[in-house]
Amino acid sequence: MTADVLDRVRAFTARELTGQHDRLDIPGALPLEISRRFHAAGLALWWLPEPDGGLGASIEQSVDVVSELAYGDAGIAFTFLVPLTGTLLVSLYGSPDLYKQHVLPMAASGGCCALAFSEHEAGSELDRTATLAEHRGAEIVLNGTKAFSTNADFADFLLVLARDAASDADASSFHTLLVPRNSPGLQVDKRWPVIGLRASATYQLSFNDCRIPAENALNGPGIRVLEAGVNSARILIGAMALGIARRIRDLCMDYAATKPLAGTGLLDNPVFAAKLGQMEMEIDVMRNQCRGTLRSALGAKMFCGQTGWQIATVGSQIFGGLGYTTTLPMAKLLRDIRLVSIGDGGDDVLRQLLYNRYVLPAFRRV
Amino acid sequence: MTADVLDRVRAFTARELTGQHDRLDIPGALPLEISRRFHAAGLALWWLPEPDGGLGASIEQSVDVVSELAYGDAGIAFTFLVPLTGTLLVSLYGSPDLYKQHVLPMAASGGCCALAFSEHEAGSELDRTATLAEHRGAEIVLNGTKAFSTNADFADFLLVLARDAASDADASSFHTLLVPRNSPGLQVDKRWPVIGLRASATYQLSFNDCRIPAENALNGPGIRVLEAGVNSARILIGAMALGIARRIRDLCMDYAATKPLAGTGLLDNPVFAAKLGQMEMEIDVMRNQCRGTLRSALGAKMFCGQTGWQIATVGSQIFGGLGYTTTLPMAKLLRDIRLVSIGDGGDDVLRQLLYNRYVLPAFRRV
Amino acid sequence: MTADVLDRVRAFTARELTGQHDRLDIPGALPLEISRRFHAAGLALWWLPEPDGGLGASIEQSVDVVSELAYGDAGIAFTFLVPLTGTLLVSLYGSPDLYKQHVLPMAASGGCCALAFSEHEAGSELDRTATLAEHRGAEIVLNGTKAFSTNADFADFLLVLARDAASDADASSFHTLLVPRNSPGLQVDKRWPVIGLRASATYQLSFNDCRIPAENALNGPGIRVLEAGVNSARILIGAMALGIARRIRDLCMDYAATKPLAGTGLLDNPVFAAKLGQMEMEIDVMRNQCRGTLRSALGAKMFCGQTGWQIATVGSQIFGGLGYTTTLPMAKLLRDIRLVSIGDGGDDVLRQLLYNRYVLPAFRRV
Amino acid sequence: MTADVLDRVRAFTARELTGQHDRLDIPGALPLEISRRFHAAGLALWWLPEPDGGLGASIEQSVDVVSELAYGDAGIAFTFLVPLTGTLLVSLYGSPDLYKQHVLPMAASGGCCALAFSEHEAGSELDRTATLAEHRGAEIVLNGTKAFSTNADFADFLLVLARDAASDADASSFHTLLVPRNSPGLQVDKRWPVIGLRASATYQLSFNDCRIPAENALNGPGIRVLEAGVNSARILIGAMALGIARRIRDLCMDYAATKPLAGTGLLDNPVFAAKLGQMEMEIDVMRNQCRGTLRSALGAKMFCGQTGWQIATVGSQIFGGLGYTTTLPMAKLLRDIRLVSIGDGGDDVLRQLLYNRYVLPAFRRV
Repeated sequence: MTADVLDRVRAFTARELTGQHDRLDIPGALPLEISRRFHAAGLALWWLPEPDGGLGASIEQSVDVVSELAYGDAGIAFTFLVPLTGTLLVSLYGSPDLYKQHVLPMAASGGCCALAFSEHEAGSELDRTATLAEHRGAEIVLNGTKAFSTNADFADFLLVLARDAASDADASSFHTLLVPRNSPGLQVDKRWPVIGLRASATYQLSFNDCRIPAENALNGPGIRVLEAGVNSARILIGAMALGIARRIRDLCMDYAATKPLAGTGLLDNPVFAAKLGQMEMEIDVMRNQCRGTLRSALGAKMFCGQTGWQIATVGSQIFGGLGYTTTLPMAKLLRDIRLVSIGDGGDDVLRQLLYNRYVLPAFRRV
Repeated sequence: MTADVLDRVRAFTARELTGQHDRLDIPGALPLEISRRFHAAGLALWWLPEPDGGLGASIEQSVDVVSELAYGDAGIAFTFLVPLTGTLLVSLYGSPDLYKQHVLPMAASGGCCALAFSEHEAGSELDRTATLAEHRGAEIVLNGTKAFSTNADFADFLLVLARDAASDADASSFHTLLVPRNSPGLQVDKRWPVIGLRASATYQLSFNDCRIPAENALNGPGIRVLEAGVNSARILIGAMALGIARRIRDLCMDYAATKPLAGTGLLDNPVFAAKLGQMEMEIDVMRNQCRGTLRSALGAKMFCGQTGWQIATVGSQIFGGLGYTTTLPMAKLLRDIRLVSIGDGGDDVLRQLLYNRYVLPAFRRV
Repeated sequence: MTADVLDRVRAFTARELTGQHDRLDIPGALPLEISRRFHAAGLALWWLPEPDGGLGASIEQSVDVVSELAYGDAGIAFTFLVPLTGTLLVSLYGSPDLYKQHVLPMAASGGCCALAFSEHEAGSELDRTATLAEHRGAEIVLNGTKAFSTNADFADFLLVLARDAASDADASSFHTLLVPRNSPGLQVDKRWPVIGLRASATYQLSFNDCRIPAENALNGPGIRVLEAGVNSARILIGAMALGIARRIRDLCMDYAATKPLAGTGLLDNPVFAAKLGQMEMEIDVMRNQCRGTLRSALGAKMFCGQTGWQIATVGSQIFGGLGYTTTLPMAKLLRDIRLVSIGDGGDDVLRQLLYNRYVLPAFRRV
Repeated sequence: MTADVLDRVRAFTARELTGQHDRLDIPGALPLEISRRFHAAGLALWWLPEPDGGLGASIEQSVDVVSELAYGDAGIAFTFLVPLTGTLLVSLYGSPDLYKQHVLPMAASGGCCALAFSEHEAGSELDRTATLAEHRGAEIVLNGTKAFSTNADFADFLLVLARDAASDADASSFHTLLVPRNSPGLQVDKRWPVIGLRASATYQLSFNDCRIPAENALNGPGIRVLEAGVNSARILIGAMALGIARRIRDLCMDYAATKPLAGTGLLDNPVFAAKLGQMEMEIDVMRNQCRGTLRSALGAKMFCGQTGWQIATVGSQIFGGLGYTTTLPMAKLLRDIRLVSIGDGGDDVLRQLLYNRYVLPAFRRV
């Protein structure tokens, strides 16, 4: 990624996102038009190699890209970051042909992809996934329901986690499958009404004898296939919280500059200074954590979610009664940031994961 | 208040409020129909003496009434509790005639009243109130703008804080005035779009040569007149948080009863138990605090706001991904409870007040 | 309890405790001399009926007594409140003779009693108590080890929880026994070195064929016998945190009065005011909670422990570098208050208890 | 720094520090013997260039060194890290001769240096420093008192902040002076009794016509001279909290491995797992923050102090009643870690600094 990409993202954000929440962030909104413009600006799928249509950004650089986008609108940032996991899984575990047939055209046309892992019953316990994949000749037939899938309705393809119909319920009997959106038997049941990130769209799906070519199955160790992708996504969701938090700080400063208090102004108030000083420290720590290694991905999402929520809590009180109205974007930011601690593995799940993976095995502790 | 009143409130809540948020809690909703039913059920203005049309409830009993109502819908609870401050001020500082002319008819017809104290510039510093009241013969003429006034558009009358146009800016030069809603020159500028409590309605007002009879001025020491009323309101806003918190707890328990986890269910999970045990303690403390003395009013609002927000934060994470959708009332409860720490004096204001009133004078410390 | 008792406690505290920490609160100190003075002042065992040698104070009044004592020295307050559980258990479940033979002489002489419930292995799970009680004729023979027993070495008698050697391990097979300190076979193994409350003394004990008269067994339903006593103790431990928290607040105010800052003084600093305002609210809530019903006992201990620790954390930072020295009593208060969340059932235990007793059975929720 | 240095530090810690608190961490202890061994092991002043007697470690590497040392004993770690600021200031702002005359011999002999900046009256406002430096011919004469100076009594030399006696009180009128410990007129008034870090020693000093050569004054912009040194120290104090936090985690795991609970053991308890999972995340974030840039130094100290205290709070409750005794090192760790939020600029000071330096100038915000 060349140095100017971040400037271009910043310019795109300022021009298309920041302050556009009345248009972008409303119930029923779809991110299609803004996606087209992002593609037209040459910024879409920024993490793909340049020959494949991207800008060759690393995860660390992606943190800054997502933080900038989320500064403008976190729903749009979320829409744009979701495909990273999908393309990463295809490039790591799919055949070169699969990548050529699906990822390259998507990059060329400015499309996107989606993930369909979670189910209502299984919740965070992916090994209780009930969607079944059955081999029938050269095809795989899918049956089941997926709870939350962002981008699914307008995606080019989805990556779907399913249990092998022929196997017992152990971890190796799972497949991750690339399912083109237009596959017969794939149905979008409904769009979820959500608290925030309203510029993005999340769906419930069902598969009814949905048929795909057998070569659309990724090769890799069952559920563990998801790990690299999911960890990258967690870092970028943390980066989303970082962008929102930076916006809250700047909004607080803008407001304070106009607000008279105690003879002078809010900007000169020591209690305000203490809150913003604490916020700045927290933002700095969030940023350093997102720039850590993949090992720190769990911490990036968990820490940025907890701390971002704390920042939004303090921020929304700074505006007085106005902080409860929706005339300022503060209300939107509060709603948006809530996702970070809820989506893609809540804190309870991540804490248990950290305990099992990094505390119980003593040699893995930092 | 006889013992069965609380049962009647509970029955009203179960019948008319709980689970009706799709109807009551939507942008643009008005609480008029539900107010009529509350009046028809003989419950409106429950704190007024029975001969005056109320049920004679004390503040302590009102805590339970508000907690029950807010369990069902906090926007409705807020609509119903706002008039307490108004009637209290008229009964304490208004002439008997004023009470007879305005409070009694309101009680008879099932109407309500509103408060108009806050202004954009003054913020929490009431002594910077800029709305002017000028005596002209038997009339007082009002000019100015008020930022936040709940119920104002459909109220029978408003209580308005204004500066005496003839005085210097010291505390004794303020008047609290009863302004009938239909007074010429009183204009409702707009309704505020808000994060939550959407079953209630809050307005911005302006007074343009608005004329009222001179005898509509309350008698009392300037701004200090507001104190008793405002303290009662703070306790009841605290009680509102209590009701919401109780609802969150019960929703968590309902959800846990249906959610499989780790072979058994969420109900048997020790981490869930720890969260709910902590919540129950916090709810117990909130309740005891709201039942304290008027001295504890600042603490009731501040503590219930902080703790209620904590409960809502934990609660909304318990539902997993569903906690971010608006298909469960959890999202509404999160939005509603945010007001408690923001409205009617944010924590910064109350902390400063506590410091000035109860810490600096050593003999007042508990 | 007549109104002046609290004044007398306050006077005793000011004269004998406050500021005496260099003498009272040191490793190896014993509270014997100060106990004698408390008895001489007519204040010892203030909860006993007046004819029995006490002052007839209720639990609610005892909250104020303990808060005053702990304001001076929480180690002394702890020493004095521990016997309340013991005398309560004897009066509720012991024979009148037992009360006459043990409680009355203790009250007359200014003695004290102790509790010996906890064991290392069993921890918070009292039903895993391993100390055995075997009936042999008119005697009961005790064998086992008890982990923590405050006052034990200089107590007149101890109340000991033991399993019936003849029974299976169900809850009804437990006895609570009054064991005179001078019983043969009762041995004090060691005094525990502790973080704080150094004016009190806590011991590890063992029973080796320790014989007591069979009539020293309390009558009541096994482990449940302890409940009333333990709940009262929890409220008073909460009150201890309240007293410490009040002292911290006052120390902060004293310090601020002398500390120059930013041209004026710390007393005029808004950040300081915000901290003290928050503290005052928390102290007010702690106090109201301790004055609640027995139902609120779990909340009193848990809330006062958590909030008191928060107050001590903020408090110890207010003094700058001096806050890390032991030349100010602040360091002692920090050490002392830590016990509240650790002793007599930690928060994990109490949360689980609240969940089982007051959340799972829906009708018991507040 | 070669890769094996950290292994050598780890070995030194295991051999000389961990588990030695009964010997090292007692009132009145001095770190002289252990300093000699550290020097003998070739590890002293590890940040100095190798030709000067050090190991050439960067700040980032020093984070790991300090974290390892503090894992064993934070008082010793503190003793060893304090001289970094001193040598850094001499190398940046002193003449080459000054460095040769004072730093090289100190490195050769295994000595140490100290800092004397803070004063009682000035507190965190260094520009109110009252100690005076007067030029008299080839000498500078010092008069004044310094509040807290770690290592001072046994240091080879001190770096002292003083106001120029000839100037007005603006920032440029301050000098940082190298004062040999044996200078006439430099007197150690007392050693401070402290809450923790008892293996280190902190003193109050006074200067009474204390004379030093004029060339012992550092060259640089007044108070700003201190900045680079102080920022490095803040990162290393943060690293100290990191080491303590890691030790707490490991102690909790060791304890859990032996503690039976609910039929199995504490290690299998989900609430315990949730606490340790949260702890591991926090430790990971602390570590990443300490490895950030100098820009992040304020955040490193503030965040590690706040989070380390949270970890110690949770940790000390995990041990049940034992957590309140001093038989486990947990009590020591709790006492030790408290310094991080108090010493070298408390959170209030750092928050104000962050606000002034990094929030008010918008271009500096991260």
